[in-house]
Amino acid sequence: MKKIGIVMGSDSDLPIVKKAIDTLTEFDVPFEIHVYSAHRTPVEAKEFSANARANGFGAIIAAAGMAAHLAGAIAANTTLPVIGIPVCSKNLGGMEALLATVQMPSGIPVATVAIDGATNAALLAIQMLAITDKELADKLDAKRRAATEAVLEKNKNIEAQFNK
Amino acid sequence: MKKIGIVMGSDSDLPIVKKAIDTLTEFDVPFEIHVYSAHRTPVEAKEFSANARANGFGAIIAAAGMAAHLAGAIAANTTLPVIGIPVCSKNLGGMEALLATVQMPSGIPVATVAIDGATNAALLAIQMLAITDKELADKLDAKRRAATEAVLEKNKNIEAQFNK
Amino acid sequence: MKKIGIVMGSDSDLPIVKKAIDTLTEFDVPFEIHVYSAHRTPVEAKEFSANARANGFGAIIAAAGMAAHLAGAIAANTTLPVIGIPVCSKNLGGMEALLATVQMPSGIPVATVAIDGATNAALLAIQMLAITDKELADKLDAKRRAATEAVLEKNKNIEAQFNK
Amino acid sequence: MKKIGIVMGSDSDLPIVKKAIDTLTEFDVPFEIHVYSAHRTPVEAKEFSANARANGFGAIIAAAGMAAHLAGAIAANTTLPVIGIPVCSKNLGGMEALLATVQMPSGIPVATVAIDGATNAALLAIQMLAITDKELADKLDAKRRAATEAVLEKNKNIEAQFNK
Amino acid sequence: MKKIGIVMGSDSDLPIVKKAIDTLTEFDVPFEIHVYSAHRTPVEAKEFSANARANGFGAIIAAAGMAAHLAGAIAANTTLPVIGIPVCSKNLGGMEALLATVQMPSGIPVATVAIDGATNAALLAIQMLAITDKELADKLDAKRRAATEAVLEKNKNIEAQFNK
Amino acid sequence: MKKIGIVMGSDSDLPIVKKAIDTLTEFDVPFEIHVYSAHRTPVEAKEFSANARANGFGAIIAAAGMAAHLAGAIAANTTLPVIGIPVCSKNLGGMEALLATVQMPSGIPVATVAIDGATNAALLAIQMLAITDKELADKLDAKRRAATEAVLEKNKNIEAQFNK
Amino acid sequence: MKKIGIVMGSDSDLPIVKKAIDTLTEFDVPFEIHVYSAHRTPVEAKEFSANARANGFGAIIAAAGMAAHLAGAIAANTTLPVIGIPVCSKNLGGMEALLATVQMPSGIPVATVAIDGATNAALLAIQMLAITDKELADKLDAKRRAATEAVLEKNKNIEAQFNK
Amino acid sequence: MKKIGIVMGSDSDLPIVKKAIDTLTEFDVPFEIHVYSAHRTPVEAKEFSANARANGFGAIIAAAGMAAHLAGAIAANTTLPVIGIPVCSKNLGGMEALLATVQMPSGIPVATVAIDGATNAALLAIQMLAITDKELADKLDAKRRAATEAVLEKNKNIEAQFNK
Repeated sequence: MKKIGIVMGSDSDLPIVKKAIDTLTEFDVPFEIHVYSAHRTPVEAKEFSANARANGFGAIIAAAGMAAHLAGAIAANTTLPVIGIPVCSKNLGGMEALLATVQMPSGIPVATVAIDGATNAALLAIQMLAITDKELADKLDAKRRAATEAVLEKNKNIEAQFNK
Repeated sequence: MKKIGIVMGSDSDLPIVKKAIDTLTEFDVPFEIHVYSAHRTPVEAKEFSANARANGFGAIIAAAGMAAHLAGAIAANTTLPVIGIPVCSKNLGGMEALLATVQMPSGIPVATVAIDGATNAALLAIQMLAITDKELADKLDAKRRAATEAVLEKNKNIEAQFNK
Repeated sequence: MKKIGIVMGSDSDLPIVKKAIDTLTEFDVPFEIHVYSAHRTPVEAKEFSANARANGFGAIIAAAGMAAHLAGAIAANTTLPVIGIPVCSKNLGGMEALLATVQMPSGIPVATVAIDGATNAALLAIQMLAITDKELADKLDAKRRAATEAVLEKNKNIEAQFNK
Repeated sequence: MKKIGIVMGSDSDLPIVKKAIDTLTEFDVPFEIHVYSAHRTPVEAKEFSANARANGFGAIIAAAGMAAHLAGAIAANTTLPVIGIPVCSKNLGGMEALLATVQMPSGIPVATVAIDGATNAALLAIQMLAITDKELADKLDAKRRAATEAVLEKNKNIEAQFNK
Repeated sequence: MKKIGIVMGSDSDLPIVKKAIDTLTEFDVPFEIHVYSAHRTPVEAKEFSANARANGFGAIIAAAGMAAHLAGAIAANTTLPVIGIPVCSKNLGGMEALLATVQMPSGIPVATVAIDGATNAALLAIQMLAITDKELADKLDAKRRAATEAVLEKNKNIEAQFNK
Repeated sequence: MKKIGIVMGSDSDLPIVKKAIDTLTEFDVPFEIHVYSAHRTPVEAKEFSANARANGFGAIIAAAGMAAHLAGAIAANTTLPVIGIPVCSKNLGGMEALLATVQMPSGIPVATVAIDGATNAALLAIQMLAITDKELADKLDAKRRAATEAVLEKNKNIEAQFNK
Repeated sequence: MKKIGIVMGSDSDLPIVKKAIDTLTEFDVPFEIHVYSAHRTPVEAKEFSANARANGFGAIIAAAGMAAHLAGAIAANTTLPVIGIPVCSKNLGGMEALLATVQMPSGIPVATVAIDGATNAALLAIQMLAITDKELADKLDAKRRAATEAVLEKNKNIEAQFNK
Repeated sequence: MKKIGIVMGSDSDLPIVKKAIDTLTEFDVPFEIHVYSAHRTPVEAKEFSANARANGFGAIIAAAGMAAHLAGAIAANTTLPVIGIPVCSKNLGGMEALLATVQMPSGIPVATVAIDGATNAALLAIQMLAITDKELADKLDAKRRAATEAVLEKNKNIEAQFNK
């Protein structure tokens, strides 16, 4: 199976990125995680991206905050799908990271998820692998059904509490 | 090869969506296009999404404006990757479509591209198929190189015009 | 009397929705409450909405946060009036939920109240029932007068404290 | 049948409000229309609202732009449901009218629709009357089905044009 | 001397409004303070405003949050200068109160100060009275000089601490 | 009678400022108009403000766009009331001028009106003079009544056209 | 004299960038201009930046729109001062380019000017060179005085037209 | 070596400005720090700026919040490069300070850094001095390399923790 690359701009993003790690682990999808900054280690970020397909990666998840260039910088160096997680920063609620991640120019897409949306970033990566992996697709369907069941369970509790 | 589904919320979105069609056609990637509204034809939108994997689709592109629920509504009914194009509307510059597309709750990702970013939506879908399709990956790399060349050509023109 | 349906996207919305429950209870207006997610339980959300009029509902209140599709998804499946409560989420102050709830396309209205405005959502539902229910209208008027009295009481206290 | 009141803050809002008039006319719902400004004719706006229920109105639609106080000012003087249409102004895309209409304090709800959303305002008013009017509810359902058919027709055209 | 009227939409605004009271007290400018809500006590708010000039007021300060209509509602009933204080609310940082206060239609001005800017609201009211009151103008100048001195004092401390 | 000073940051603001000139002219209120930029002619702007009270001014209106410092820069040099008109610029709809004008620090108020709200700026200045000028107050009241009449006239036309 | 580098992300930015060229030309400051995209020609952008100091550049101006990474990508590869011009794009008024340019992480500054502010970008670059170049500083002072004169001239015209 | 001037609008900005002080100290770049308010001590702010070049300054850093005029007011009185730090305030996350600092009119540039970005402001000032100071440039390069090393170290830790 292809690996998923996870790159974060700073190790302070780990609490957010941890949710992506957990999701990939839960699905037994292999991954590699790195701290590469678009601005402080541009060489390493580039090298990683440029060789990612040859190194067996299927998609790359990039998490960064503020003027979040990381996902775009990675996407500029690979034609693998790149998934961007805008990380919330202190002052503007992550709005600047969202816009800096999603508003990419034509030719260099970044698949952007919600601010701090690391679980969805991992699910999206798994969905990409599952396009040609029936077993993974079945696991995704199973997890979706479980999520449905969980909501219905909560519904039952709320109904029991409030509806007479 | 898997097909790409394209769904737009209204046929008035065609001028935007046309760029996705052109890109898929350029890459010889098969696609199917539909006008399904999350709100006006929820049954058809759901049916299409729920059966998309079985019907040979690899990914779905959804374009919608205003309170853009289409991509999310499709994502709720399939575990295929869903790519959302927020379409610019008259009053708020597409900001509401962007937020309504990208800020999805945990469990149901939508891979969001820029406002009106239909070319990138198609490229992202192709990138997903190319994870396991070497020929398609090579085409993506070739197109990327061509884009690089085009910029360098423009650079040469500008340099010739201004640098002495 | 018609019942009011209350649907929340997640049971974590209960602290907000509780204010709507309290208001309906205060007015002796019958209600039913459910946890249905537009994305995690689209089937149940749809079924509930599609049958709501036949099941004796007069209006439906829907509360959801982030890319808040719930009210719109319900409105897509019924012609009962649907009242949307945008729920404040962590990063953007509820602005994305507000826009995703209120900016509905032509044909599928959602009567949107303020971010976290659950009391007003319930009052609005009661106002709708009161169009043809004199007793309920009288109760609304009485409550309004009581609110006026409460402000005047506070006014008296402030006047006594500061005006000589 | 109860009448619907339509109030606009300025006759320059007529092009927007016209869509509400057309929708009410299409449904044979009686209405009365007025130009009352919350700020320039507060007395008349108040008198109209305070007597609206006694004068046979079932709901009031209020359209205003900029610091759009009209819907709130009407809602302050009646317990009939008040529907607010934020009208787009030149500089801020109607965002200020949206916020000034929807962010009402607890106790005085305004059922807010999209910026310039006059068709939906009228549909919402009709939905309110239809809670206890089976014929009107049937008309709403018929119109909804017609809208669905229209989308499906457009879908057929787009499919014929692009899908082989 | 003319009195300054202070109206707040809710007694929960008192911690903000207190700064205006303190400033007026410091300048020995007479004032009257009331809790009147544009929506819950529209009659009292109107009566107060309509008679304010006759009752010896020179200007009115109005503080309100959310869809802050209070200053505008008062301005609609008097031609005295009305000063609006947008009060910060929980979700949107007071942005909605600012827009609802400042974006008044032509003909009904509201002199808007910063979000929560109650001290400046009082100073502005005093400045208005000082147009024809030399003694008050001198006090304003004195206070301004004192503020200058205070900054220069702080400057000296910082200089002493950091500049060698 | 005190004069009103009008300062604009650039003569390109004249089309906006013209409405203030017309209003002052209509009320026979004397005024003086200048083009002083906070940034390009800080000396002149300062001199004008610092001497304004001595030179017979009662209030100063300042119009500027973008990082609109003009009103604040004038307010820093006088204790006369300063009225700020944020002028709409090309890219951000005047939002930056609004914030740069209204969000003044404690001690230096600017009475801010709506974006491009020059008529209201003039009316506000007149209202300030009218605090102690009965004739001017009567003119303001007369104009207010005329505005009310104009709305009622428009109301009559709309009623005649649409209400049967 | 050190040269100024000008890099634009696309030759469509030329109409904006032209104002920087004109200003540098007016001051006889040598410059070199290139079209390098952070995303389409990352190699060339990097090479240019990494060698800029050795190649005799004193500062680099970078203009880009949307998720404007260009200035940051250049700043990541040089310790020369980098000046960022956020270019206005169609949908969001340049707000996303502004945030993506200015909100840089600690360690990699970008000196950001106003949206489309190419003249100021050039002036800022000249100001940097003028720190140690008295002749250039004198030219800047002369231009500043000329700008002051121009405003005073306009002031005279406006005064002649309106002040009696 | 030229000195760097640091001006803050209020001594409450010191916790932010402290990072600039630390960075300049680390680079052994001489600086002078002052508390001057654009509005409360305009005379001192002006005097400092107008004489800064003659007094041996090479660049000025100005930090201010809310309607942050300080950097612009300084820039209006010198042709030295002025670096603006928008300081985050309580209600709007520093957005108003950012816009009031960066959106300067043509002719008076302010080199704006991120909200609260004092470290980058100092680095930018040092970069300006380093244009003609090889030793300082070498120190900047060394610090950049150290930052790169620090990220790579963190990367190693994260890799060791998560990659098997």
